[in-house]
Amino acid sequence: MGLEANIRHVTPYVPGEQPRQKVIKLNTNENPYPPAPGAMEMLHQMDPEKLRMYPDPEIKMLTECLASRYQVRPEQVFVGVGSDDVLAMSFLTFFNSGKPVLFPDITYSFYKVWAELYRVPYTCPSLDGTMHIRAEDYCGENGGIILANPNAPTGLYESLDVIEKILKENPGVVVIVDEAYIDFAGKPSAVSLVDRYENLLVTQTFSKSRSMAGVRIGFAIGNERLIRWLLDVKYSFNSYTLSALAILCGTKAVEDETYFQKTTSQIIATRERTKRRMAALGFEFPDSSANFLFARHPKYDGEVLFQALRQRQIYVRHWNQSKIREYLRITIGTEEEMETLYEALEEILKS
Amino acid sequence: MGLEANIRHVTPYVPGEQPRQKVIKLNTNENPYPPAPGAMEMLHQMDPEKLRMYPDPEIKMLTECLASRYQVRPEQVFVGVGSDDVLAMSFLTFFNSGKPVLFPDITYSFYKVWAELYRVPYTCPSLDGTMHIRAEDYCGENGGIILANPNAPTGLYESLDVIEKILKENPGVVVIVDEAYIDFAGKPSAVSLVDRYENLLVTQTFSKSRSMAGVRIGFAIGNERLIRWLLDVKYSFNSYTLSALAILCGTKAVEDETYFQKTTSQIIATRERTKRRMAALGFEFPDSSANFLFARHPKYDGEVLFQALRQRQIYVRHWNQSKIREYLRITIGTEEEMETLYEALEEILKS
Repeated sequence: MGLEANIRHVTPYVPGEQPRQKVIKLNTNENPYPPAPGAMEMLHQMDPEKLRMYPDPEIKMLTECLASRYQVRPEQVFVGVGSDDVLAMSFLTFFNSGKPVLFPDITYSFYKVWAELYRVPYTCPSLDGTMHIRAEDYCGENGGIILANPNAPTGLYESLDVIEKILKENPGVVVIVDEAYIDFAGKPSAVSLVDRYENLLVTQTFSKSRSMAGVRIGFAIGNERLIRWLLDVKYSFNSYTLSALAILCGTKAVEDETYFQKTTSQIIATRERTKRRMAALGFEFPDSSANFLFARHPKYDGEVLFQALRQRQIYVRHWNQSKIREYLRITIGTEEEMETLYEALEEILKS
Repeated sequence: MGLEANIRHVTPYVPGEQPRQKVIKLNTNENPYPPAPGAMEMLHQMDPEKLRMYPDPEIKMLTECLASRYQVRPEQVFVGVGSDDVLAMSFLTFFNSGKPVLFPDITYSFYKVWAELYRVPYTCPSLDGTMHIRAEDYCGENGGIILANPNAPTGLYESLDVIEKILKENPGVVVIVDEAYIDFAGKPSAVSLVDRYENLLVTQTFSKSRSMAGVRIGFAIGNERLIRWLLDVKYSFNSYTLSALAILCGTKAVEDETYFQKTTSQIIATRERTKRRMAALGFEFPDSSANFLFARHPKYDGEVLFQALRQRQIYVRHWNQSKIREYLRITIGTEEEMETLYEALEEILKS
């Protein structure tokens, strides 16, 4: 009774299911290819000393490696336990004005959860009829902005012109561009803008394009001042967030640019083929720039399709939520996995 | 200018140094022995699939293993990225009354940092002349209590009678007992009290007795309701805090009870020998129940000793802070490391 009164009550984010049995898993946007061979080798030869001792709290090795890969200074890079960790700390660090933070009504549903966790007010402008954002919705008074680009679950990419307009109109607040899926876009990252806009923070993850969802690595790139404030909060939360294992594997993965390009191109090629096959089956979808397709069928209910696929051991993501109830979010797997999906859908649509 | 106004400004915790060169490192209470052989084997044979996919957000394998080891139900166990992560989330979850949280003036200095991060007011009763807490200091109105037992940096253990008195006097607030060092105490853990006090949360870590500081695992055991509230906050922060690597290695470590007992006993034996040797050198110290000694020499300045050891490539911890300025906190290393320490101290004390 007394106890309960002082608890921070929250409604947590619900991640996609992690089934234990063998299924075709197209529900959490994982990469179907294994991580870079160098990362695996590193693990397979791991020195016990690395486990015994605390890791480098500054995560220097990986920070410097990322800085070099993205052509920024190490002081412009922040590393965390997946981009969720980076974003959670960013909400805590940057959104303290008391004014509402802005993000679209249809986007990564964790934004709302973080806002509620930290008691940050928020407003969610609607996407337009084509599922794009309207830049003018993000140009009034606000306490900060967060946009996923490409957006999830739509997969739509907004041009840097749109992002720049929003950055220019909001010099006094932090604008976060969550680029979890940017490597599949084949289009420019907002990282190219960090030296010009001191209010810009760009986040990315190792969970998708780098096949390391299980290792938990994400990062932010931005102005040195923003990174410094973020580091202060991180060091006030946990000195050692990233394990020595993650630091070493992550560095090896970034060093293997060839493997990264090869697997990423393969997923993009499969996605483009998936668009043709799904269109042929009568599905409609925004033109995805990510490693998933957000698709609906004009004649079939989303929930019905979701359950029918599930019965066939194919897991996709479905939200029982207004505006997107008719859609399935389907992760791009291997060619073989996608073939099994098309066959299953053909069968379901015929029945 | 505008940007800075809405930032959460904090003064972060400063962890002990992680030197890159080869030194005798007795400054961060790491375990001198390698992690359980099974944990290393697990890493050396790691399946790439474990990296590619998201880990189990519920961390079931490790949670169930800990529940069985500590004879509680899995619903009474919470796992995080080191006990710092568990404690940071506990501050956020439990200390929302607006009344001051209580912890001793001399204790783990991160408590103050978490309180400041989350804007939780706090009061710090002084330790008594023997460096023990006074139970009555924790029996007035307050917003929660956190006690390290054994305390750091003193190493002193408080009996469960003292803990129980505090639990009974504070039914309406959460009392956290931070047992990072309990496995070196050879004395009962407050885990035995969790079924009797619904306001008790006990935290422990894999960083000390389990030789896994680099892997980042900590956990809490308490009443199911406390654990559920803590999980809600965790799932509102980051669905997947623990990497698949940490979950697997951690489980293997807990399964090897024999290795755990062997290395822990060895450290306790070395600590008792260290007490005799240090006393012979004229040092004074509280009777440590942890894997470190908190020692001062009546004739030598703490800072001077710290620097002299450092010049000899022996790193210990020293705080330039009132009341403890004269003390060094010396981690118990291997027998060989401690021999080198005694020799260095003999030399320094003679000069």
